[in-house]
Order: sequence, then C-alpha cells, then structure tokens
Amino acid sequence: MAPGKEAFEQVEWRIRVADGSSEVLVPATGLARKAWLGTKGLISGLALKVWMFLKKAWTLGANDPRKVIHCIKAGLALTIVSLFYFMRPLNDGFGGNAMWAVMTVVVVFEPTVGGTLYKCLNRVCGTFLAGFLAVGVHWVASRSGERFEPLVVGASVFILASAATFSKFIPSAKSLFEYGAQMFVLTFSFVAVSGYREDKLFDLAHQRISTIIIGTSLCILVIMLVCPIWSGQKLHSLIVGNMDKLADSLNGCVTQYFNQIGECTNSNEEADKKLQGYKCVLSSEATEESMAHLARWEPSHGRFNFRHPWKQYLKIGASMRSCAYCIEALNSCINSENKFRAAVGCFIYFKQAAELIKKHLSSSCLKVSSSSSSAIRELAETVKTMKKSSTIDLLVGEMNSAVQELQNDLKSLSYLLNPSSGPENKNLETACMEATTPTVPLMEIIPVVTLASILIEIVVRIEALVDAVEELGKLAEFATRDAGSKQSQMKDEIVTIEEKTEGTMRALQKV
Amino acid sequence: MAPGKEAFEQVEWRIRVADGSSEVLVPATGLARKAWLGTKGLISGLALKVWMFLKKAWTLGANDPRKVIHCIKAGLALTIVSLFYFMRPLNDGFGGNAMWAVMTVVVVFEPTVGGTLYKCLNRVCGTFLAGFLAVGVHWVASRSGERFEPLVVGASVFILASAATFSKFIPSAKSLFEYGAQMFVLTFSFVAVSGYREDKLFDLAHQRISTIIIGTSLCILVIMLVCPIWSGQKLHSLIVGNMDKLADSLNGCVTQYFNQIGECTNSNEEADKKLQGYKCVLSSEATEESMAHLARWEPSHGRFNFRHPWKQYLKIGASMRSCAYCIEALNSCINSENKFRAAVGCFIYFKQAAELIKKHLSSSCLKVSSSSSSAIRELAETVKTMKKSSTIDLLVGEMNSAVQELQNDLKSLSYLLNPSSGPENKNLETACMEATTPTVPLMEIIPVVTLASILIEIVVRIEALVDAVEELGKLAEFATRDAGSKQSQMKDEIVTIEEKTEGTMRALQKV
Repeated sequence: MAPGKEAFEQVEWRIRVADGSSEVLVPATGLARKAWLGTKGLISGLALKVWMFLKKAWTLGANDPRKVIHCIKAGLALTIVSLFYFMRPLNDGFGGNAMWAVMTVVVVFEPTVGGTLYKCLNRVCGTFLAGFLAVGVHWVASRSGERFEPLVVGASVFILASAATFSKFIPSAKSLFEYGAQMFVLTFSFVAVSGYREDKLFDLAHQRISTIIIGTSLCILVIMLVCPIWSGQKLHSLIVGNMDKLADSLNGCVTQYFNQIGECTNSNEEADKKLQGYKCVLSSEATEESMAHLARWEPSHGRFNFRHPWKQYLKIGASMRSCAYCIEALNSCINSENKFRAAVGCFIYFKQAAELIKKHLSSSCLKVSSSSSSAIRELAETVKTMKKSSTIDLLVGEMNSAVQELQNDLKSLSYLLNPSSGPENKNLETACMEATTPTVPLMEIIPVVTLASILIEIVVRIEALVDAVEELGKLAEFATRDAGSKQSQMKDEIVTIEEKTEGTMRALQKV
Repeated sequence: MAPGKEAFEQVEWRIRVADGSSEVLVPATGLARKAWLGTKGLISGLALKVWMFLKKAWTLGANDPRKVIHCIKAGLALTIVSLFYFMRPLNDGFGGNAMWAVMTVVVVFEPTVGGTLYKCLNRVCGTFLAGFLAVGVHWVASRSGERFEPLVVGASVFILASAATFSKFIPSAKSLFEYGAQMFVLTFSFVAVSGYREDKLFDLAHQRISTIIIGTSLCILVIMLVCPIWSGQKLHSLIVGNMDKLADSLNGCVTQYFNQIGECTNSNEEADKKLQGYKCVLSSEATEESMAHLARWEPSHGRFNFRHPWKQYLKIGASMRSCAYCIEALNSCINSENKFRAAVGCFIYFKQAAELIKKHLSSSCLKVSSSSSSAIRELAETVKTMKKSSTIDLLVGEMNSAVQELQNDLKSLSYLLNPSSGPENKNLETACMEATTPTVPLMEIIPVVTLASILIEIVVRIEALVDAVEELGKLAEFATRDAGSKQSQMKDEIVTIEEKTEGTMRALQKV
C-alpha cells in the first residue's frame, strides 16, 4: 500500500569493510531484545489487568460503602482475636486454644447480623450436643473391650454422619440447622477419635467450648455494634424498592406504547432502565428467601420486633412476581406489534384506522396503568412507613373504575369495527368515518386488545398484592396513618392522575 | 344426653365403716394420675412427631435414593478417616494431625463431584498460598523488633482478611474461589498468630498440608468411585426435563382451553400437575446457576468433556424461562375468561356466537400448540442425545406455517364480526347465521384473541430457544443423527399431529 513506509521500516545500517565490500549490521533485535519486549508486554499487560481489577473493585466499593464497612469489620474482628492470643502466651502453641477462636471468627463472620447469629448459635449448640453425646459413646466404647471399641466408635460415627448429612435434604431442617449439623458431626468425630488417646476429655471440651464462646461473642459484638446490617431491614427495603420498580415499569410500558402514536419516544437510558425494573422483581426470589431465613434469628431492631412476620414478605414477593410475569407479557406484546404489522402487510389507511382505535383506547388504558401504579406506590409507602394506608381502598376503587371504563371502551369498539350497527358513540364514529376505510380489520387491533386484556389481568393480580400487604399489616400490627390530611392529599393525587391523563391525551390529539 | 352413661362413669366405691356411716373412696385420679396421663400424652405426642418425621424422611429417601446413597458415602468417608487415625497412634492427641483430616472430610464433602472438587482444590490452594505468605510475613515481623512485631502481624492480618472478604463481593471471584479465600485467611491467621511461639513452622505446615491432602484425596476417591453424582449430568438432565415440562404445559393449556367447549374437562391430578410444569422452569434459575458453576470443575465424564460449554445451558435456561413467562400469561388468560364473562354479563346467544368463534380458531390454535410443543420435545431430544437434529428445521417450518394459518383465521374473523362485508368463508358465515345473532360483540372474543396473540409470541420465543440449542450443538460439537430414518419418522409424526388435531376437531363438532 505504502511502499515508502515499508522501506522506511526496513532501514539498514551498512559498514564498509577495508576490502571494499560492505556488510549489513544486524541491530540487536535478537533473543535478548525479544525477551525484553516480551517481558515488558507481559508486565504491562499484568499491570493493566491488576489496575482494571482495582478500578472495578473501587467502583464496587464506592457504589455500596456498606460492603467496604463489612470488610473492615471482618478484618477488625480477626485482628482483635489474633492479637489477643498473640500478645498473651495463653496457648500451648499451634493447635491450642487460639486456633478455635480464630477459626470461629473466620467461619462465623457473615455480612448480616442474622447470618452471624444463625452461625454462632448453630456452632455453639452443635458443639455442645455433640460433645455430650460423644462422651457417652466414649464411655460405652471403653467398656466394650478392646476388640469392640473401634467397632462402636466407627458405627456411631457412620450413623451420626449419615443422619446429619440426610437432615440437609429436609428443607425445614436445612434452613434451621444445616451449619449446626456440620458442627455436630465435626465435634463428635473429634471427640470419638481422640477419646482413645486422651483421658482428659472434659478439660479439652471445656477449652474448646470456652474459646468458641469467646470467638462468637466477639463476632456478635462487632457485627451488632459497628454499623450493623440487618437481614430484616434489607428484606424490607428490597420489597419496598421492588414495588416502586414494578410501578415504574408498568406505567412506563403503557405510556411508551401510547406515545409511539406521536413517535415522540425519548428513549434515553434512564427511561429504559425504569422500564426494565420489573426484571429485578423476577430475579429476586432466591435473595428474598435467604434473607427471610436469616431475619428470623435477629432480635428486635429498629421498628421490627423479634417475631416480625418475615414469611409474609415472601408472600408479598410472590405476588409481585406474578404481576411482573404479566408486565413481561405486556412488554413482549408491545415489542411484537411492529413484527405483527410486517407479517400482516397492511396498507397505510388500515394503519390510520388502527391508530384511531388505539387513540380510542389510550385514555382508559393510561388511566388503568396510572391508577394501578399509584396503588402499587401506595402499597410501597404502606410497607415503608409500616402504617396502614387510609387511601388504598380509594385507590383500588379508582383502579377498578378505570378497568370498568376500559371494558366499556372495548365494548364500544364493536361499533367501530361494524359501524352500521352502532347506535352510540357518535364522536368516535365520525372520527372513524373520516378515515379512508369504514371498517378496521380485526388483525390490526389485536396488539392493543391484547394489551388491554393483560392490563385487566394485572389489575386482578394487584388486588392479590393489596391483600398480601393488608395481611402483613394485620400480622405486624401496623398503626393507622393520620387519615385526614392524607386523604385530602390522596384526592389531590387522583385529580392529578386525571389531569395528567387528559394532558397526555390532548398532546396526542394535537399530533 | 345419656344420663345412664354419665351415672355409669360416676360409679363410686363406698366403704362401710364400723360406726355404721359410709365413706366415699376417692380413686387415685389426683396429682399422680394426672402427672401420669400428662407424661403419657407428652410421650405419645413426641413419639407421633418422631414417627411422622421418620416417615417423611423415608418417603424423601424412597423418592430419591441418590440422597440416601450420598449420606452413606459421607458416613463412609468420615468413618474411614476416623478409624485410620483411631487405629494408628500417629497423632499426639486431640488437636494433632487427625483433626485436620477429619475436618477436611466433614467440610469438603459435597453431594456432587463438582462441589467436592471445587472445595478440595480451593482448600489446598488457599492453604498453600497462605502458608507461604505467612512464613514471609513472619520472617519480616521477627526482624522488625519486639515492639513492631505485633503491629506487623496485626496489620497484615487486617489487610488480608479485609481483602479476602471483599473478594466475595466480586461475582466472578466469588464463584471461583470464595471458599479458597476463607481458607487463605484461616491459615494465614493461624500461622501468623502461632509464629510467635513456634519456630518449627515448616514442620507444622508440612503436617497440616499432608493431612489436608490425605483428607481431600479420600473425599475425591469416595465421591468419584462410589455412585458419583456429577453436577454437569444433573444440569443436563434438569434442562432436558424442564423442556419436556414446558412442552407438556403448553400443549395441555391450549388443549384444555378448547376442550372446555365440550365441557369434557377431565381434570385429574396427573393432568393438573402437567399443566403446572412450567412453574418448575420459572423457579430453577438459582439451581441452574449453581450447577453450572460447579460443573466447570468436573473432569471429562460420560459424554461431557472437561471444557463442555456449561454456560450455554444457562442461556438455554433463560430462553426457556422467557417461554414460561408467556405460558404463565396464557394460563391466566384462560383462568380469567370466566371472570371476564361475569363482568360483561352477556346473554346466552352471545355465548353461543363466541363459542362459534372459538371453534373457528381452535383448529389453528391447537395446531400451533401441538407443533410448537413437538419442536420443544425435539429440542429436548437433541440435548438429551447430544446429536444434531435433522428434523428441527422441518418442525420449525411446520410451526411457522401453523402460525400463518392462525393469522389467516384471525383475518377471516373480521368477516364474522361484520358478515355484510365478508366475501369468503361461506361455511363459517352460514354457521354464524345459524346463531341467533348475526354479529359477535368484540368483548366476547377478547380472551380467545389474547390467547392467539400470546401463542404467536410463544412461537417467537421458541425460535430463540431453537437458536440457543443450535449454538450449544456448535459449541459442544454434536454429531449428526442418522438422518434418513429419522426424517421419515418425523414426517409420520407431523401427519399424526394433523390427524390428532382433526380428531379433536371432529370430537368437538359432535358435541
């Protein structure tokens, strides 16, 4: 391509030797230079990777400082226990007391208070129980003669280890004492195996248990006193956050669909993220369950009592997911509209007619979506403040009347499809007449009709969500909110919803 | 009610005393009897509970014998390692070598080969690395003077513990070496703390590592030789099973819906279970992910190579879930039809007309559902046999032509709604004329139209699933199946589908 450039790169150094001939001087690009370049590339590549990793880690920490705090807490607890044993010559060396305390801190320290308490209690109980049982078995074994002793020990280890492993497969047992069962088997095996050599079993048991208690108490103190993170609080915030996301997604989807008429889709990233919010709801089942399991272990904290109905949060989560499934279907129905049209291959005047139908339904659809997302937001507020809502009945009523309106609009649609038989709805009929075709093919309105019927289904599911939240209010004894001011505020909100819908409609009609 | 009976229960024992008066003998129903009854009740209650628990456990074991085998394996491994140390006086008592081997077996033994290998490798690597680093830090600390020694040790423990804890928050690091990081911190702290007292660090390190290697090798031998359960194989079977469930649900839903015309719903439990199969697909995301993570660690086994594309299974799983969301919507649209009608409050002749429309669409809807579930079953077969399907293109073509037919039926529906403008489809028109009303209100046909449009969306998603499975075929280099015989068999199958659909249609027409 560029011969000049190539020639430039192949510059040669020649030396004229005494006999008149010239010799090419090869530059030092041999093995040494190659090795240097390779090493340099490797090091710089490695440095770049490390740098990228650190940058990523930094972003992660900056986005959620609680993670950094947790790491500092873990380091702190371990340093305290290490230095405690390092400074005082209490232990008889490696494998002595120190080990158990250090091991306890490393193994038991979890990000949340509930997780740490669960592990601490399981560790202490499992160790105690196994210790007692092992001493009993040891007593029986030592009295059964030298020949049968290994048999008794072996059989007991086999049976208990198998049983403890099996308990992991029973869901209720697994969530309550999986870790405890592991500790049980561990301690039992230790004592049973060591029993043969040692007679000072009780001394050792006492040492082990006291060091475990030191380790667990230190963990509990650090986890509860230094910026505690409660599983219950996290679950509570997750549920509230997911409800808000659900409301945003629902409203965003429907608004975006009807805005497409005027082609005024301002699809920036922010809005897209909001639309995809329901996906968080779909994927948070496992997180919710593990948090609810851990929250059971937490003592009374903040506004939550010890026996706060955490299981009800799981039911609320399931209700939200059933709404989110419908939003998924809604989204897909919106995305597929264009494909649909391409498949049908309809003409421009059909499209115009379909747009008319879309306009005809948009008012009530928008009202359904905005009233139902207000209801969801009100539920989020109820759970967040832990106060019974005085306006949720009003909002549900509003939602249902919007559904009724949508159903009426759907009924009147028949006359649009078949104007000769239509006695009412003069205005729309005239509008339809203005279009170049008197009747709209059914195929064209399938997407909007599907959307409407999914919307109606979503409302049914939101009612189930309302029931779940009300059940939570009963179980957790939510206080009633200051009704008067809130109710008037709510009425204002409903008026705002109606105004907004009208505003959108007017904007659409102008286009 | 029965005074005689009451009197009988209140029989008294009287004793005639020497002075002529008589005294009532109170039976021993006092404290002792009550205590006895209470204890008896408590014991029988407890026995009943234990019995119920054992029965439940028995059912669990009988349903999945692999769980029982796993428990026996865990017991076996632990008994072997315990007896090994119990019989040979190798150790210097409690806390000696034996402990590390026993602890390794208890902690490392997981139900699947992948899980055990992951933990074994993490344990060995974490311990090695931490051991080397700790010896280095110990060397530095011991040369920095008595005053700075605790500072150096404390600071190093703090930094490393915090960093290791932080690594858990980075998803890619967490899945690869979460357990290794814990082992690293544990070993580092042990060595750093004990370093002060002991000079024979290398001896101890050697002992610990050798016992850990004994424990891990024993675990690996037992888990791989005695009825091994492979994560990869489990993931593979899960995906295949879920595909079959998806196909059953889809076909079952649609068939049930159209069978409701003839009211011949034989809703036994078996069929209900099949209909709900898609829920397994919705809830198996977490299981799939953990299995795919563990499967990476497994060596070549059965038909799977070491670098089998397990990640692609996750993509297939996600595709299946997106189909399952649609089936959820389909199900809800079927369930809500009755509610819908109640809301509209339509008359009997409207219903008849709607049934006509339903019949009109049923043939093509049934064809779409049966062809798409055949396609899913063929995909399941492809993944199961790990052989490229020669007929999937045919089936997808069949599915698409069924969709085309459904779309044509939907188009012709316009004429049913507005018969005056309908030039074609004489037969249906006549049928419609036979009904007491000439036009069908749109409201009545919304459920069936929604169902049809969701079905079309499902077909789009099944195509994405087909692509995902084909990608897996490419990545895992599936062999091609014996094409000839299969293709003719497939054609037979397609004929069967058509016959079945026709049969159902005829049965429906008779009713």
